[in-house]
Amino acid sequence: MSRLDEALKSIASIDPELLDKAQARLDMLTKPKDSLGRLEEFAKKMVAITGNLTPGINKKIIFTFAGDHGVADEGVSAFPKEVTPQMVLNFLRGGAGINVLARHAGVEVKVVDIGVDYDFTDCAGLIQKKVMKGTRNIRKGPAMTRDEAIKCIEAGIELALENAGEGVIYGTGEMGIANTTPSSAIIAAFSGQPVADVTGKGTGIDDKSYNHKVRVIEDALNVNKPNISDPIDVLAKLGGTEIAGIAGLILGAASRRVPVVVDGFISTAGALIAYELKPQVRDYIFASHNSVERGHKVMLERMRLRPFVDLDLRLGEGTGAAIAISLVEAGVKIYNEMATFGDAGVSEKTI
Amino acid sequence: MSRLDEALKSIASIDPELLDKAQARLDMLTKPKDSLGRLEEFAKKMVAITGNLTPGINKKIIFTFAGDHGVADEGVSAFPKEVTPQMVLNFLRGGAGINVLARHAGVEVKVVDIGVDYDFTDCAGLIQKKVMKGTRNIRKGPAMTRDEAIKCIEAGIELALENAGEGVIYGTGEMGIANTTPSSAIIAAFSGQPVADVTGKGTGIDDKSYNHKVRVIEDALNVNKPNISDPIDVLAKLGGTEIAGIAGLILGAASRRVPVVVDGFISTAGALIAYELKPQVRDYIFASHNSVERGHKVMLERMRLRPFVDLDLRLGEGTGAAIAISLVEAGVKIYNEMATFGDAGVSEKTI
Repeated sequence: MSRLDEALKSIASIDPELLDKAQARLDMLTKPKDSLGRLEEFAKKMVAITGNLTPGINKKIIFTFAGDHGVADEGVSAFPKEVTPQMVLNFLRGGAGINVLARHAGVEVKVVDIGVDYDFTDCAGLIQKKVMKGTRNIRKGPAMTRDEAIKCIEAGIELALENAGEGVIYGTGEMGIANTTPSSAIIAAFSGQPVADVTGKGTGIDDKSYNHKVRVIEDALNVNKPNISDPIDVLAKLGGTEIAGIAGLILGAASRRVPVVVDGFISTAGALIAYELKPQVRDYIFASHNSVERGHKVMLERMRLRPFVDLDLRLGEGTGAAIAISLVEAGVKIYNEMATFGDAGVSEKTI
Repeated sequence: MSRLDEALKSIASIDPELLDKAQARLDMLTKPKDSLGRLEEFAKKMVAITGNLTPGINKKIIFTFAGDHGVADEGVSAFPKEVTPQMVLNFLRGGAGINVLARHAGVEVKVVDIGVDYDFTDCAGLIQKKVMKGTRNIRKGPAMTRDEAIKCIEAGIELALENAGEGVIYGTGEMGIANTTPSSAIIAAFSGQPVADVTGKGTGIDDKSYNHKVRVIEDALNVNKPNISDPIDVLAKLGGTEIAGIAGLILGAASRRVPVVVDGFISTAGALIAYELKPQVRDYIFASHNSVERGHKVMLERMRLRPFVDLDLRLGEGTGAAIAISLVEAGVKIYNEMATFGDAGVSEKTI
């Protein structure tokens, strides 16, 4: 059995009884019932995901997958393609947004070259999982072969399995100039919605470039005719290596009951591929922030996930995940560390 | 000149030029312009508040003011009044929600007895600022005399001044059974909106008790006839000692250019008193979370403040402020620690 098939086979829904058990403990704590809102929801979900009635978090890792996109040649991004490797080097030196926010939240960042069109040499700290030097231009044909797409997914699964363990939580992140284009293409394919309704301005293109971007995505759908009952076909034809890596990371994590905090728009496209392959993965996902990118909401609704960080972020890299991991951790600490009414000698509700 | 008059006199609006200078630095950092959304806004505001072009945060303090309310006798709360001192003891032992979330965010909690109807003896760590043993029942007459209200405000100002310094940020919090009742009364008075439109279910009362709570607040407004052009009159007649203490803390902080992160519904009632006394205080306030309590939004809109944590919280104590302080700090770190395009050798936008 392939690594992918094995992961898919190992993923099961969470046990709702664990949610009830966690709720019972939350209701004993010195606070009005449900008054810590979504922090309580996070604690319950962590109990159910891990199967541990006193779950702890002792290792937080964000995987930032980097890959290039042939479709960048169409002028769909505000930044030139060489920014992908430049930003990878910035990540490794600790100067990017994700580095700052991860340090703030006590999260380790692992930078993964899964498909950058650049030869990195002597890059201490870079995880080498390169499957190809950038995807092919989706306006003209498939981004990847089916085999390449599966290799990228399996690279993500490998990373998930290698780092899994008790008390581990993952976050997803990405870097890849032009990667909102394949992400919008993927959600347009699955949702059947008009491309313009699920396409945003990415890093900040002007109106003319935006209209062009929409046309490029429409062309990509017409040329490739992805089969949405076969998510790997959608991924191979429209996707990116980093999107595939993220899909794999999520599948691998869910197969080992490791929670995954998913970043914004592009990461959610990866999550959507994982979900279309195995809907039960949604139980293991925390949707972090509400991206400014249109289309993000459509994907989250499809997976019935509700984000919880609303800071107008649209950087990617895993920045929203870094903030969200800290909030999930806050929920777990509430669950583990708060005194009960009994312990604290506090009177309970009377009406 | 009284301590209150001195504070009011010292508060000035922030200098918008500082916002522009901070924006110029943010636009040099290795990210698409504005892509870190509200985190960038927080950094700019911190520069303007402190007047420091490289502002740091090295001390985070949440002041949790505790006070009792005569109106609790009317049965407006789900919990009995003795819970106020019980929770104060829980705070001092570190077992409450605010303790857990403050530890998570590296924030110190200072618990202030400003008006609890209980004699605390041998309570290490409790800050004694008791002005009175609970307010009087607002359904029957004023909660406090004008002099008592000013004493409470000045207790808050004192704490703000004693702890002020470079790199300091404050958060507000409170504990006081029945304190959503005076908070709703205050916002109903200033806004002129029907009481039911600005009154919520507090710690979780049933529909019958809710209707009763609305009537109690309507009676309090009719009996007291607060003069809204005199915010101290509104505070004295309808308020609470902890609401007054929070108003004072905010005034004192603004007078020393210390930023204040304001918690939820009750804290915002305190902020509103400060704002009605001196509208410029709004420049020094970060509105943390969007409370489940109706009326909260009305107050924030009146002050033109936009909250940024949306976790369905309704506990108070300073819990939303603890989470929000960490996000403000994240914004400051982005501003200080990210590499610039020049430093990192990253190409800039082309279209």
